Amino acid sequence: MRKVKFIVKSCEIKTGKDNIVFISPKYANLIHVKDGEIVWIKKDENKKFGSKLYLDYRIEGNFVLIPKILMEKWDLDDGDEVEIFPVEIPNVLSAIKRKLYGKRLNEEEIFDIIKSVVNGSLSSEGIAFFVSGYTISRFSMREAYYLTKAMVETGEKIVWEDKYKPILDKHSIGGIPANRISMIIVPIVASLGYTIPKTASRAITSPAGTADAMEVLANVTFTAKEIKKIVEKTKGCIVWGGGSDLAPADDIMIRVRHILKLDPQILVLSSILSKKVAAGSEYMILELPYGPSSPKAKKLKDISTWVDRFIKLASKFGIKVYPFKIYTTEPVGKGVGPLLEARDALRVLVREEERPIDLEFKSVIMSTHLIAFAKLMDEKEALYEIREKLENKEVYKKMKEIIKAQGGDPNIKPKDLKPAKIEIEYKSKEEGYVEIIYSKDISEIARIAGAPFFKDCGIYLEKKVGDYVRKGDVLFKVYTNDEYIANVIEEELKKRKIYEIRHALSKKVKKLIDLRKKI
Amino acid sequence: MRKVKFIVKSCEIKTGKDNIVFISPKYANLIHVKDGEIVWIKKDENKKFGSKLYLDYRIEGNFVLIPKILMEKWDLDDGDEVEIFPVEIPNVLSAIKRKLYGKRLNEEEIFDIIKSVVNGSLSSEGIAFFVSGYTISRFSMREAYYLTKAMVETGEKIVWEDKYKPILDKHSIGGIPANRISMIIVPIVASLGYTIPKTASRAITSPAGTADAMEVLANVTFTAKEIKKIVEKTKGCIVWGGGSDLAPADDIMIRVRHILKLDPQILVLSSILSKKVAAGSEYMILELPYGPSSPKAKKLKDISTWVDRFIKLASKFGIKVYPFKIYTTEPVGKGVGPLLEARDALRVLVREEERPIDLEFKSVIMSTHLIAFAKLMDEKEALYEIREKLENKEVYKKMKEIIKAQGGDPNIKPKDLKPAKIEIEYKSKEEGYVEIIYSKDISEIARIAGAPFFKDCGIYLEKKVGDYVRKGDVLFKVYTNDEYIANVIEEELKKRKIYEIRHALSKKVKKLIDLRKKI
Repeated sequence: MRKVKFIVKSCEIKTGKDNIVFISPKYANLIHVKDGEIVWIKKDENKKFGSKLYLDYRIEGNFVLIPKILMEKWDLDDGDEVEIFPVEIPNVLSAIKRKLYGKRLNEEEIFDIIKSVVNGSLSSEGIAFFVSGYTISRFSMREAYYLTKAMVETGEKIVWEDKYKPILDKHSIGGIPANRISMIIVPIVASLGYTIPKTASRAITSPAGTADAMEVLANVTFTAKEIKKIVEKTKGCIVWGGGSDLAPADDIMIRVRHILKLDPQILVLSSILSKKVAAGSEYMILELPYGPSSPKAKKLKDISTWVDRFIKLASKFGIKVYPFKIYTTEPVGKGVGPLLEARDALRVLVREEERPIDLEFKSVIMSTHLIAFAKLMDEKEALYEIREKLENKEVYKKMKEIIKAQGGDPNIKPKDLKPAKIEIEYKSKEEGYVEIIYSKDISEIARIAGAPFFKDCGIYLEKKVGDYVRKGDVLFKVYTNDEYIANVIEEELKKRKIYEIRHALSKKVKKLIDLRKKI
Repeated sequence: MRKVKFIVKSCEIKTGKDNIVFISPKYANLIHVKDGEIVWIKKDENKKFGSKLYLDYRIEGNFVLIPKILMEKWDLDDGDEVEIFPVEIPNVLSAIKRKLYGKRLNEEEIFDIIKSVVNGSLSSEGIAFFVSGYTISRFSMREAYYLTKAMVETGEKIVWEDKYKPILDKHSIGGIPANRISMIIVPIVASLGYTIPKTASRAITSPAGTADAMEVLANVTFTAKEIKKIVEKTKGCIVWGGGSDLAPADDIMIRVRHILKLDPQILVLSSILSKKVAAGSEYMILELPYGPSSPKAKKLKDISTWVDRFIKLASKFGIKVYPFKIYTTEPVGKGVGPLLEARDALRVLVREEERPIDLEFKSVIMSTHLIAFAKLMDEKEALYEIREKLENKEVYKKMKEIIKAQGGDPNIKPKDLKPAKIEIEYKSKEEGYVEIIYSKDISEIARIAGAPFFKDCGIYLEKKVGDYVRKGDVLFKVYTNDEYIANVIEEELKKRKIYEIRHALSKKVKKLIDLRKKI
């Protein structure tokens, strides 16, 4: 219980997402802490962070070694004096235990838990117990509200001046590979003069998230302050929500959930909404892809309760949601994987012949709906304006501004984006029309190839739904940079049926393709 | 996916119970692993261990820095060559997920999970999810059997030659502070020539476990091989089960359970039994303290299902269990905390006037029952022999042998064991007979004082149940070594009612005290 001052010293150690600091064993005895314990690092009354403590015999004196990345996060400098003492959070732990046993939690309990998640005082095992509780037990909408609110309040929040309003936004429930519509919707909306600060996610189980693809063209990791500055300049941004200080609890919990791939409803609801509330969103279009190729919703009714709850919860935070249902039988666009998806988006913006029409179509339609929903224009007018701005490359010009504002090279061209060197072809064994491309298989193969970890790995779809193919035609190519993996992929491709090919297209698909031609 | 050889180098870092190794960031890129990832450290086909990987920029070349304690555990030497590559255990993770959703697991699934717990390939969050599953979901006795079996099979097992049999043992469901009967029962049984390899636990929520108290007199951390050697020499031992390689999964899971103080039935059953099965036990006396002072069982029926299941499960592993029910209204013995409890036990053995009679009584009775239960003597004969060996100090002599075999000083005397310097008295506000001493409060105060972390901290009960006290009499003393804590304790003592004092004793307590006098 003796108070000992420690001198902060940065060290070049990377510990994933773990908060770890090191002190000497002698000093650990002095302050009654053990290795592996969670301790507070306290600079002053307003600055206290939790971290796991390890002991390093190489340290002499009262130094605490803190990894550089934590120094930045906690705004500490070499030479700062801090106190170190054990974390005690019995109320938080007993609330988590009660949730595990199925009890409802109140606002204060939920806030305290989320605060502990963010300030590092709750161990990752503790977070896993909390996630378990909400995975198994029922939850009330009240709890979902408290949870979202707590996640917002324990991070930064962007407050927009009236002149930037209304704040538009877009979200997709995901599950469809490629689908890089945000990289087209954001410059469309911004080129029309409307504000759209898009916080995107990285891939969790998919071959690329919007943040991974955008990162091929520019930086995506910014603080709330930086995001605000970028958007005040360009009206739009495409940044990584998880890299910002907006609702940071979300990212910590996602990492734990990801271990078992757990998607409990309340955590998914609060995860999406907390980022949006913190970013100041007011009008949001919510993409709901469904159909045989959607791993999350084969049928609309699979997600109807979820959507109702999302809309209801969003309204409590003043966000109006427009649910956009879209029947989906294939990945959107042709490229799958960060680089190939970024190339697709650029191709649409620079109006290349090879651009994926379905990606363009969906982006245009959704932008139109979003603008009309926010009552900025009527649908017809919005559609006309969007088409014009796309054709005269004002949308592309806007994207270049955004890329530049995010620290990228605005002059990058689709041809600069070269996929990995090893190419594996997947050929058709049948003749007919492509009716379905199974997204789940495309995602899995692209991930085996190396996406999203290796940005240039992935898949390029040579044939899309509606195309007529002959036996031996190349349906898609897989790109990877490792011989061993190439062999694994060849074996995998033999085992799977990824394309559904029919003598004639179904009515539903035909209608979808016809609709696209009209716009 | 490239195979890179790493050179093992030990480092003096202590990471609690976490498996952590360090490599250079350059080499991490080369083998496609990220900081925070769980990786295999593989020496050869038979030697593979899981660890979390951190990156240290100070490391140059293909070295992997491994904490000394892990080097010993994994039997690695400086200069050894190992391979490092990512852990992938999808089957284990999906089984854990299924358990979280309430499904039953089969033998293979449970074995694979426990194997991953032991070899380090399952993250601590993954273990928390597993514990959550068994905390909330129902379990079958079949699952309890598989789990116990897996915990035994993933550790060492002691096989005893026939000349040492039968193998006796003792276990208590716990909850009563002090209660250091094992430190008397073991030398009693061993002095009669019977084998009793006692694996004890450390305190989890109590002020001291048997292992903590025994550690005041001798080492308690031994491998299965070492335990066998000690017992072959002395017939008995008192070692820390959690420090051995007997059922190591248990200790890892206890650490995670302890975060929320979770005691799910199946994990408690398998925890106790796995250690006993691995130690080769055949006849066990199971102490079941119940009554107003027992935090675990106010009434016997509170634990009757648990006891039935324990006996049933034990029988599947060939262990015969004698349930010993004992009504309890106070801590057993006078000292509470590692040193004070060890002193109590020594006082009984050396036959000091001040020795706690209740501790002696209980130890003698339980030893008698255990020996009779194993059909080694009849009860009368056993009781007579035990009394005689206690009185002529043969039991003490045996304890000295055990202390010596476990690396302690056999000549240690009760007076050598001095409690911490700051002494706080707790005085009676009433006059009458002590009817109940609340164990829960005694435990909590002793822990605040510093037990078990500081061995010399704790409580000494001046008055016990049955004693007549006047207003102002000292009921107990608290020992601590920190002024600040002393103040906290004084405040705590004001708030609590720890002694139940009555004009006359209840019949039940009177009977208990009379019984003691007869033996």
